[in-house]
Amino acid sequence: MAKPKKVCVVGSGNWGSAIAKIIGNNALDKPELFEREVRMWVFEEMVDGKKLTEIINTKHQNVKYLPDIALPENVVAIPDVKDAAKDADILVFVLPHQFVRGVCNQLKDKMKEGTVAVTLIKGFDVAEGGGILLISDVIRNLLNIPCAILMGANIANEVAKENYCEATVGCKDPELGRLHKSMFQTKYFRIVVVDDEETVEVCGALKNIVAVGAGFADGLGYGDNTKAAVIRLGLMEMVKFCEVFYPGSQQSTFLESCGVADLVTTCYGGRNRRVSEAYVRTGKTIEQLEAEMLNGQKLQGPPTADEVNVMLKNKKMEDRFPLFTAIHRICKGELPATKFLDCLKNHPEHM
Amino acid sequence: MAKPKKVCVVGSGNWGSAIAKIIGNNALDKPELFEREVRMWVFEEMVDGKKLTEIINTKHQNVKYLPDIALPENVVAIPDVKDAAKDADILVFVLPHQFVRGVCNQLKDKMKEGTVAVTLIKGFDVAEGGGILLISDVIRNLLNIPCAILMGANIANEVAKENYCEATVGCKDPELGRLHKSMFQTKYFRIVVVDDEETVEVCGALKNIVAVGAGFADGLGYGDNTKAAVIRLGLMEMVKFCEVFYPGSQQSTFLESCGVADLVTTCYGGRNRRVSEAYVRTGKTIEQLEAEMLNGQKLQGPPTADEVNVMLKNKKMEDRFPLFTAIHRICKGELPATKFLDCLKNHPEHM
Repeated sequence: MAKPKKVCVVGSGNWGSAIAKIIGNNALDKPELFEREVRMWVFEEMVDGKKLTEIINTKHQNVKYLPDIALPENVVAIPDVKDAAKDADILVFVLPHQFVRGVCNQLKDKMKEGTVAVTLIKGFDVAEGGGILLISDVIRNLLNIPCAILMGANIANEVAKENYCEATVGCKDPELGRLHKSMFQTKYFRIVVVDDEETVEVCGALKNIVAVGAGFADGLGYGDNTKAAVIRLGLMEMVKFCEVFYPGSQQSTFLESCGVADLVTTCYGGRNRRVSEAYVRTGKTIEQLEAEMLNGQKLQGPPTADEVNVMLKNKKMEDRFPLFTAIHRICKGELPATKFLDCLKNHPEHM
Repeated sequence: MAKPKKVCVVGSGNWGSAIAKIIGNNALDKPELFEREVRMWVFEEMVDGKKLTEIINTKHQNVKYLPDIALPENVVAIPDVKDAAKDADILVFVLPHQFVRGVCNQLKDKMKEGTVAVTLIKGFDVAEGGGILLISDVIRNLLNIPCAILMGANIANEVAKENYCEATVGCKDPELGRLHKSMFQTKYFRIVVVDDEETVEVCGALKNIVAVGAGFADGLGYGDNTKAAVIRLGLMEMVKFCEVFYPGSQQSTFLESCGVADLVTTCYGGRNRRVSEAYVRTGKTIEQLEAEMLNGQKLQGPPTADEVNVMLKNKKMEDRFPLFTAIHRICKGELPATKFLDCLKNHPEHM
C-alpha cells in the first residue's frame, strides 16, 4: 500500500480556491490516499489590514477571490511557494499562465523524487520563434516531472456552488490517472480520464479562436444555422490541427468535456464571443473593446489565432484551415469581417 | 455517360420549397446531371380563391409556406403525387412524417427500375410492439428502393435566404452519394457525405430528447457548466444508443452537422428546450404547454423518449442510459424534475 499523497495547490484565485475545496474534502474522505493537510500557495496581499493567508487560515474562506464559500479546515494557506510545495507528491497548478515560469523557477531542483504535477491552467505560452507552447510542457521542462492536465466546461463559481458539471483529465499513466480522478471527482464534479494529454490541453486554447468566429457570426446578424456551422467547422479544424501538430491525438477526446462541451459553452457564453460580436457591430479595434468591455483585460482568442497562424504559415497550411486563418486576418484588420463566411465557402471539409 | 436524372420533390412545406429552390437551381447549372424540370408534389389547397399549384407555377413562389422567396421557373408544382413521381429517378421526401406511409402506398409498384430516394424528414415512425422505426426504412420497405438521408442544423427559412450552413448526407453507395451532393450543394449550403446512413437519421430523432434535458437544466436555474454537461452526456448516450441498436455506427458521424451541430442548435434554440424549461418553471403538463405555447402542435422530444425507453427496457439497459431514462420519467410525471441531476451522479461515463 502506497503512502498517502501530500497535495499542494499552487494558486488561490477563484478557480484555485474552488479546486482546493474539492481536494480538501476528498483528502478528508480518503485518508488512505491523501494526507489530511492540503497546502495552498497564496500570493500574499493585505485585505482590510489583514494578511490574506491569515484570513483564509482562520475564517476558512478566500474572502477576496471566492467569497461566501467555506473551505475545509484542512486546506492551509501558505505565502511562500517553496514552503507550500516542500515534500509535495502532487502539485496542482492553477494560476494565471504568465506566472508559471517564475513559480517553476523557484521550485526547480527542490522537488522530491517522484513528484508529479497537474495543470488546470487555460491558455498557452509562446514558443521561441512563435507558435503555441503548452503550459504542461513549460512545467515538465522546468521541473523535470510528469504533468497531467484537467480541462472542461468549468466556471469556478459554479463549481464552488456545487452545481453539477464535468471535467476531463488527460494523463498518459493509467495508475496516476486513477489517483488524479480520486483527488478531483465528487458527486457534482464528474471526471473522465483519457490518455490523450496534448489534445485535452490544446482544446482549451483553440476553442477561444472558434469563439471569436462565433462572435463574428452573431455580429453579422446570422442565425442559429450559420453559427452552428461555424462552431462545427471550428471543431473540425481543432481536430485537424491536433492531427498535424500533435500526432497521436484521438478524435474521441473531442467528444469529452474539454472538447465539445467547453467549446459550446465558450461559443454561446464566453467573453471572446461577446467582444468579437461587438467588434463587428461597432467597428472599434479589439484593444479599444478590451479597454471598454473587459477593464483592459486581454482576450485569449486573438493572440491564440496569431500564434496558430505562425504554425500554419510555417507548414504552408493556411488554406487547409480557412476558419482559423480568416479569424486571424479579421482580428489583424487585414480582412473585413463581412468577408468571414466567404472564406468558408470552399472549406476542405466540403470537398 | 449516364442520362440526366429526373428529380421529384415529394412535399412542399417550407423545407420542401427551400430544397426545391436549391435542386431547381442545381438542375439549371448541371444539365449533364439533372433534367431541367424538377417536379414538386404539392398537396392542393385554395389560397385566396386560387389553387396553390397554379400560384406556384405562375408566380414562382410558394406564397403559403415560403413567401417572398423566388423559386426557379423549372420547379413545377403538380397536385397528384403519382403524376409528380412518374418516371422519377430520384424522389426527395420532405413532408410531415405522418404522411409518409400514405404517400408511399400510392407510389408502390409504380416506380421505374433504378429509382432511388432521399429523405429529409425529421422524426420517426413507431415500430410494431413499440420502439423507433426509421422513416428511411418505411420508404425502403414500402417502395423497395434504396433511401439516403439528409440531416443537419437547417432552419428552412434561413436556408431559403441563402445563409451559410451545412448538412450531412448519409448514403452507403459512394457513387450515389456524389450524385446527391451535386444535387444539394451550393455555395451557401455545404454538404458532407458519410456512409453511416442510420446514425445520420437517428441523430435527428435523439437530439430532441437531449434538448428536453437541456430545457430542464435551464428551468432548474443551472448555469452554462451544467447545461454543457447535460448536452455532452446526451451526446454520449446518443453514441452508445447507436452502438447498441445500429451496429456499425461510427463515432465520427457525431462530429458532422447531423450530430453535434444540430444537437447544439436544438439545445440552445429549439422548442423542445423552450417548452421543457416552462415545464419545470410552471408545473403544468406537457400537453397543457403544447396547447398554450405551440398552438396544440406536438413536441417530438417526449414521445421519442418514450419509444427509446421501450427499446432500452426490452434490453434491460435503462441504467446504462440514465439521462434518456430520467427525461422519460420526468415527462411521464413519474419523477420530479428537481431530481434530474441526481440521476446523473453515477453516470457510466464517469465510472
